[in-house]
Amino acid sequence: MKKLVKLGMIGLGPRGETLLATLYEFPREEVLVTAICDINQEKIDRILKIMEEHNYPKPMVFHDYRELVAHDEVDAVLIPTSWNSHLKIAEEAMSHGKYAGIEVGGASSLDELWRLVRAAESTGVSCMMLENCCYGRNELLALNLARKGLFGELIHCSCGYEHDISEMCRPEKNHGIREMHNRRRNGELYPTHGIGPVAKILRINRGNRFLTLTSTASKSRGFAREAERSGCGRIVYNQGDVVTTVIRCANGETITMTHCISLPRPYSRDFKVQGTKGILMEDTKAAHIEGISPTREEIDVAGNPYVVHDWTPLADLYEEYDHPVWKGFRENVTGGHGGIDTLVLKAFTDCVRRHVPTPIDVYDCAAWMAITCLSEESIAMGSAPVAFPDFTDGKWIEESDCCPGPWSLDEVYEG
Amino acid sequence: MKKLVKLGMIGLGPRGETLLATLYEFPREEVLVTAICDINQEKIDRILKIMEEHNYPKPMVFHDYRELVAHDEVDAVLIPTSWNSHLKIAEEAMSHGKYAGIEVGGASSLDELWRLVRAAESTGVSCMMLENCCYGRNELLALNLARKGLFGELIHCSCGYEHDISEMCRPEKNHGIREMHNRRRNGELYPTHGIGPVAKILRINRGNRFLTLTSTASKSRGFAREAERSGCGRIVYNQGDVVTTVIRCANGETITMTHCISLPRPYSRDFKVQGTKGILMEDTKAAHIEGISPTREEIDVAGNPYVVHDWTPLADLYEEYDHPVWKGFRENVTGGHGGIDTLVLKAFTDCVRRHVPTPIDVYDCAAWMAITCLSEESIAMGSAPVAFPDFTDGKWIEESDCCPGPWSLDEVYEG
Repeated sequence: MKKLVKLGMIGLGPRGETLLATLYEFPREEVLVTAICDINQEKIDRILKIMEEHNYPKPMVFHDYRELVAHDEVDAVLIPTSWNSHLKIAEEAMSHGKYAGIEVGGASSLDELWRLVRAAESTGVSCMMLENCCYGRNELLALNLARKGLFGELIHCSCGYEHDISEMCRPEKNHGIREMHNRRRNGELYPTHGIGPVAKILRINRGNRFLTLTSTASKSRGFAREAERSGCGRIVYNQGDVVTTVIRCANGETITMTHCISLPRPYSRDFKVQGTKGILMEDTKAAHIEGISPTREEIDVAGNPYVVHDWTPLADLYEEYDHPVWKGFRENVTGGHGGIDTLVLKAFTDCVRRHVPTPIDVYDCAAWMAITCLSEESIAMGSAPVAFPDFTDGKWIEESDCCPGPWSLDEVYEG
Repeated sequence: MKKLVKLGMIGLGPRGETLLATLYEFPREEVLVTAICDINQEKIDRILKIMEEHNYPKPMVFHDYRELVAHDEVDAVLIPTSWNSHLKIAEEAMSHGKYAGIEVGGASSLDELWRLVRAAESTGVSCMMLENCCYGRNELLALNLARKGLFGELIHCSCGYEHDISEMCRPEKNHGIREMHNRRRNGELYPTHGIGPVAKILRINRGNRFLTLTSTASKSRGFAREAERSGCGRIVYNQGDVVTTVIRCANGETITMTHCISLPRPYSRDFKVQGTKGILMEDTKAAHIEGISPTREEIDVAGNPYVVHDWTPLADLYEEYDHPVWKGFRENVTGGHGGIDTLVLKAFTDCVRRHVPTPIDVYDCAAWMAITCLSEESIAMGSAPVAFPDFTDGKWIEESDCCPGPWSLDEVYEG
């Protein structure tokens, strides 16, 4: 029988509620939420009521996260709090020997990332970003194809977060903290859904690293338009509607990132992986891989032949090339965001149980979240290139696998 | 009856041959190739033979372009020569009062562009880049949607040239001049198929202009791989496989450009137009436009609703929103590259006949081609931002339409 993992959850907002909805489906003898915490009693009451409706064992309740992270009946802590608070809470949790599962978001300074790194290094427990998109089916398909060498040598990736959430500017949303970030800041504020899977594929921090970036922001119109038409009056937003960031890696790969959350458009993470032998694009749900995808000859108007490469639908690749994690999951998908919340929480809790490093570690958190403050700097300086610090202090030059076993996202495949 | 336009063609390589193949279908009493020129007699003989097969009237033959551009029986000159020669030839043609139709490509220096601009200004004739992609159906659909205001205020575009032509590194291709450009240079070497249509949509040089760019190059692998596997041995190429360029415009729009011609992948010009009310993407052949495209509500795992924007296939928009140029053409498409060679040559020859400015003028040529040498500078300086000169000397601040009439690409629509 598996050892029980006891979780504390700090922050009971919408993301906390969604994570809990997924955790209710976990076997309770394996993973149990034993403690919850929020400064807001209404949120606590709401969650307790939902838990009761699910016949979930009543957890301990805290209003001060410092008491929760110090408690013996908590093995690990999930921290879906605001972008301005979760890193400090994670530091404190690790200082008590608790694994920290932080939510996605970007950093405001490099120093808060260095502090997180030093906390993990000095306590020997892991800080894992619960970046569910690392467990997306197409992202893991691409990881698997990459590790099998089917893209050849990797050359370029793109990614992004293009999701119209301008409704957060409406009056009934009460101008939450995320709206304030977009009112005051201007940068790649939400990098990790895009960069997480790409960083794993490019082995960032394990034989490769981010070197520099440039960022460029468009004018800002979408939020103000939404605020005005929903009756909030004229509000000035600093955040450009489209922020484009280009990253260079130590091994010569480039990455293009797009952030756009204020314009009406269908959702996209603009995920693309390209190498010397092939390419995969999520937007078209297709790939072209040498030796798998068709190539044919056509004739131009002057009668001369030319070669055309064709796409293979991703659906045709799943059966053979799904990542091992998805091969075991695809017949029985359950949990939030199409199942990826289940996968990321299983990965985290499994590593807590085995007391091994998590597949997304504190160096990943630091490198990915650094994009936000670095992109703000670049935009402020007219798209000047800015350098990433090496948060690993040189450890990145080794191609190590931080999390061996079933949840590995770094595994070095044979062949 | 329309006045006959007499064309001279300088440069009888593959592009010259394709342009001629399209011109053979034009009414010969309206447009006639009266002169051809090449330094290579074999190419001349080849073209004369093809012309004879088409029962085409035999043109005058020149080996020195200076004689052709000076000849009275030539009204305008098409110049599909190499990137290193066509601007100088265009200058000379204009100095003789002949309209110059140059082919696509990028510049090596800003000075050669200034010389081209001054030649057009001092002679009163036009230099038009025969950028056929400006006449692509989806590009013109987007232009039409933009002018009708259906994207709202324009915010961001993307474009590129992603086309595997690594076969030019094979020995039988004899290492042509384009291969040498890619061996020695590193930059956005082929910007205009992508940027032309985008520049028209964003009214570049007519109320807007390019301000700055940054460029970032990936490592270079594709060409060397192709050279080696086709028996050319080990050749070092400087050109990165993927070059990403980000442009900022005076009115706050941003443009992302991708150049990739050395990796196996299906063709794409990565064309995207995005505004406050909608988006169009060529890769997915779909758009989302407020008021036209569907929006629906879904429920997340915690039971909370969220809004989903859906795509409308471009095919559903053609009937109503095809650009006037395509509305008249779509039932009877003929000529090279799916008809766009026909359209760009009709536009050029019609302006020559009416002696009016061309829809793509010398300022467009300069701004678009400047991207190449500026991107080389940026890459050489670690992706530092570099500034575009204002080739219009301030004329861009007026929202003028350089080419009124049926071929306009700048037209200010009502409403």
